[in-house]
Amino acid sequence: MYSIGLDYGTLSCRALLVNIETGEEVATSVYEYEDGVISEKLPSSGEKLPFDWALENPDDYIRGFVQTIKEVLAISKIDPKEVVGLGVDFTACTMLPIDKEGNALCQLPEYKNNPHAWVKLWKHHAAQDEANKINDMAIKMGEPWLKKYGGKISSEWMFSKIFQILNEDEDIYNAAYKFIEAGDWIVLKITGEEKRNACAAGYKAMWDKREGYPKKEFFKALDPRLENVVEEKLSKDVYGIGTRAGYLNEEFASLTGLTTNVAVGVANIDAHVAVPATTVTKDGSLVAIMGTSNCYMLLGKEPKMIEGICGYVEDGILPGYIGFEAGQSCVGDHFAWFVDNCVPYSYFEEAKAQGISIHELLTEKASKLKVGESGLLALDWWNGNRSVLVDVDLTGMMLGMTLNTKPEEIYRALIEATAYGANIIVENFEENGVPINDIVCCGGIAEKNPFLMQIYADVTGKELKVAKSSQTCALGSAMWGAVAAGKSAGGYDTIDEAGEKMAGLKDITYKPIKENAAVYAKLYAEYKKLHDYFGRGENDVMKRLKIIKNSIRE
Amino acid sequence: MYSIGLDYGTLSCRALLVNIETGEEVATSVYEYEDGVISEKLPSSGEKLPFDWALENPDDYIRGFVQTIKEVLAISKIDPKEVVGLGVDFTACTMLPIDKEGNALCQLPEYKNNPHAWVKLWKHHAAQDEANKINDMAIKMGEPWLKKYGGKISSEWMFSKIFQILNEDEDIYNAAYKFIEAGDWIVLKITGEEKRNACAAGYKAMWDKREGYPKKEFFKALDPRLENVVEEKLSKDVYGIGTRAGYLNEEFASLTGLTTNVAVGVANIDAHVAVPATTVTKDGSLVAIMGTSNCYMLLGKEPKMIEGICGYVEDGILPGYIGFEAGQSCVGDHFAWFVDNCVPYSYFEEAKAQGISIHELLTEKASKLKVGESGLLALDWWNGNRSVLVDVDLTGMMLGMTLNTKPEEIYRALIEATAYGANIIVENFEENGVPINDIVCCGGIAEKNPFLMQIYADVTGKELKVAKSSQTCALGSAMWGAVAAGKSAGGYDTIDEAGEKMAGLKDITYKPIKENAAVYAKLYAEYKKLHDYFGRGENDVMKRLKIIKNSIRE
Repeated sequence: MYSIGLDYGTLSCRALLVNIETGEEVATSVYEYEDGVISEKLPSSGEKLPFDWALENPDDYIRGFVQTIKEVLAISKIDPKEVVGLGVDFTACTMLPIDKEGNALCQLPEYKNNPHAWVKLWKHHAAQDEANKINDMAIKMGEPWLKKYGGKISSEWMFSKIFQILNEDEDIYNAAYKFIEAGDWIVLKITGEEKRNACAAGYKAMWDKREGYPKKEFFKALDPRLENVVEEKLSKDVYGIGTRAGYLNEEFASLTGLTTNVAVGVANIDAHVAVPATTVTKDGSLVAIMGTSNCYMLLGKEPKMIEGICGYVEDGILPGYIGFEAGQSCVGDHFAWFVDNCVPYSYFEEAKAQGISIHELLTEKASKLKVGESGLLALDWWNGNRSVLVDVDLTGMMLGMTLNTKPEEIYRALIEATAYGANIIVENFEENGVPINDIVCCGGIAEKNPFLMQIYADVTGKELKVAKSSQTCALGSAMWGAVAAGKSAGGYDTIDEAGEKMAGLKDITYKPIKENAAVYAKLYAEYKKLHDYFGRGENDVMKRLKIIKNSIRE
Repeated sequence: MYSIGLDYGTLSCRALLVNIETGEEVATSVYEYEDGVISEKLPSSGEKLPFDWALENPDDYIRGFVQTIKEVLAISKIDPKEVVGLGVDFTACTMLPIDKEGNALCQLPEYKNNPHAWVKLWKHHAAQDEANKINDMAIKMGEPWLKKYGGKISSEWMFSKIFQILNEDEDIYNAAYKFIEAGDWIVLKITGEEKRNACAAGYKAMWDKREGYPKKEFFKALDPRLENVVEEKLSKDVYGIGTRAGYLNEEFASLTGLTTNVAVGVANIDAHVAVPATTVTKDGSLVAIMGTSNCYMLLGKEPKMIEGICGYVEDGILPGYIGFEAGQSCVGDHFAWFVDNCVPYSYFEEAKAQGISIHELLTEKASKLKVGESGLLALDWWNGNRSVLVDVDLTGMMLGMTLNTKPEEIYRALIEATAYGANIIVENFEENGVPINDIVCCGGIAEKNPFLMQIYADVTGKELKVAKSSQTCALGSAMWGAVAAGKSAGGYDTIDEAGEKMAGLKDITYKPIKENAAVYAKLYAEYKKLHDYFGRGENDVMKRLKIIKNSIRE
């Protein structure tokens, strides 16, 4: 029997067909979104979008679903009847307004030219004002949930985004039958069932298994128009991870070639679904999903209020555990920015002559440097800070440059900065009594960049392991798909059972090198001092520059 | 009648033949030093040089002298008998050990493999330990001269360099009949007269017209071996600017084709000689010599103790005035570093397609940005700080980077950083009661980069004027050559008279644009805060990183 994992990323979605008994990854297919990330102008009208916006086109999600599933079936040549489960994971909070029939408002002719009718991607950062208001009011009213999210909620989250829509396009707010996570929307489209998933509700919309959403009084105080936002605009029925949402409907069975016997699990957040796929089903191992940005997941036994944690949600990652989440806004993006903007001509020629990529050339050169040799130090805030400062208005910093500074030194300093940022997160967990024994990594960087992995081991002082699958999110979704199907249909009844058969680790691990760790300890102390100086209000120059910048661009 | 100015720069020397009556620049010739700046290995032995060293080969100076003079005579086709004056200016403190016959020690077979026998270029920065010791001892002993140099002397100066030689190669120290400024050495070679010039003695060796050099007791306390360094190793007879050193000797007359009737002035520092060539012969106008680094000259009526000024010397620039000097270590070098290390492939292709240089392309793109639009801010310390912090251990810093930051934004931020650094110097003079009405600029950047000039005007709030000559240093030397010749030989008796006929300004000036200046005032306030935070001990991270870096490289 087989299960399919559907993994929706920032630029593309991927289907992975997995053999449920052996864990073999039989076939995979990727669909790049035609409209990609929409941050310059609206595809429908060409209207220029304001600063910090990031939209997507929901048609891309549907096209991607159909095309990738058809392709894995074609590649694998298996009997479609043998596919019994399907799981979906998605970036979050990626959200959209829908009508009563489940259509995205931007798919309707009357709303397609309203930017607020489109999908707001997780990295839409234009709701910072609203996030600030939510945080201020929560502090003022002493809301108990605030501490669960490290004392601050993000502009990326559901209520910040909804509030922005209300403030800027009340027509769309009113026209919206509901606001829905994109992952839940896919499940709705393919099963006909709207099953709000606990993971996204908990991590991105302040929902709690015991307490529910924040109270009416809070929303009313924020804005009288929001008083009934939960009742009117969200699903109050929230479903735990591993629940079966329903079965594939006729329409999508017919579009893809699957049967209507495919059990579909409730949706999940992409990062969170990777945890069991990296074999982690208990506390003590930090899971790092390493890519354009890094996401960290940790299972704990006790609820803890920890500064700057993106959130902790009971049963949010695995049933029976407190799931903690932390994030780094800019990792692979960091290096890509550098290559796109700061690498001299001669290096491209050299890479070409050697027949390697520019990243490979820079890595080769950077790996020859000794720890501390460059004299450079950077703060990894090119895309703000997601943990522990939770502040999108922070920006990148680098110092130590001289006329002898080489591109590979800068490249290495950027990598090191992300390792220091990771260590801030590790220390923060440990100082708050959530122990970390080792770090289990997955994602493109974990697979492809042993140089970076060693730096992370040296900086954090932890052993780094690597998940066997190179498609952990999709694999995790396939695992949850197998759980949705259940043992009776050829799947599994628990994620532990699925994990034993379907997940694994690579042989390679990265252990801290003592001499490197000693120098990095000194450099990390400098990083931390600057982190606090620029990040904790002693010198808010980054914010003031952003205010000037925004005033100029207006 | 004609005068020749010989201008010795960092990488080349230039001869300029000038018509004394009209100021017409008749012919010019440049010689690039064959050995250039020697910072990697000694040419004679291939021995690897330590970090921060910068040597030159004195043979290059002689070859340059002969070749460029022959060439200006050939180009101009004038009668060599009509050349009546010659002036020499040189980078400083660029110094060398010589024997009794005036040979550079590195020219002798027995010493040619000793690195310390070679010319130490101004930017040899390896004598920082010695500079620190001199400063510490001067503070301890309450030496009165220290305040004249802004409270700190530099590793670039004469006694720091001599002290390093003593500490690292006592044989060379002992073998040296004298240590001499390279400019004075040229004059010695071509006239047979050793005439130590007051300008270099005053600005780079703590000599004072009234007090002489620092006292024996000071040098003894520093190191007993240095007690008699002044008597034993330096010329105590110091000659004011405008003095005739002598006449061209037979050897060099014959080598160049000139006559022995050419009057030769005492040598001068390159930057200082530019002042009268920019028409500035009174107080109130700041002269900016803008190139790889910037040098600022200001005439004042009263001696003032000013923090971080490279020095003030009575009669040091022009007779009858206090000459103040301040410097910025890294200006054009800044932009060159950026182009060499941080510009993407696509920009080179674009520049090529447009048939312009990469600097032109970046300038074109950067000039389209509005003030403050990039959100970037940099400290211009890629080559340390020469004023007002006087600290070579400071390094570059930039912040405000996001994933949208473009190369032209960084390029512009680097330019702006140098303008802020310039304004620190301007403010420092004014706060200390030395008024500045306008800024008269010369050098490559002043001529070629109106975009940068406008930024400097906007940031400093001063009008910027530009010298007519594009070779102000060489012109200044030719003017002093004419003064050395005197009116009776067809020259002039005073520099004022020479200035009236030989110097001028371009028509273009740069005035502050009010709206830009308003935004720059805010950005400058941020610069200043970071300047003080990183530069005045609140966070010595740059120094600690340099200590780590040096410990790794050893």
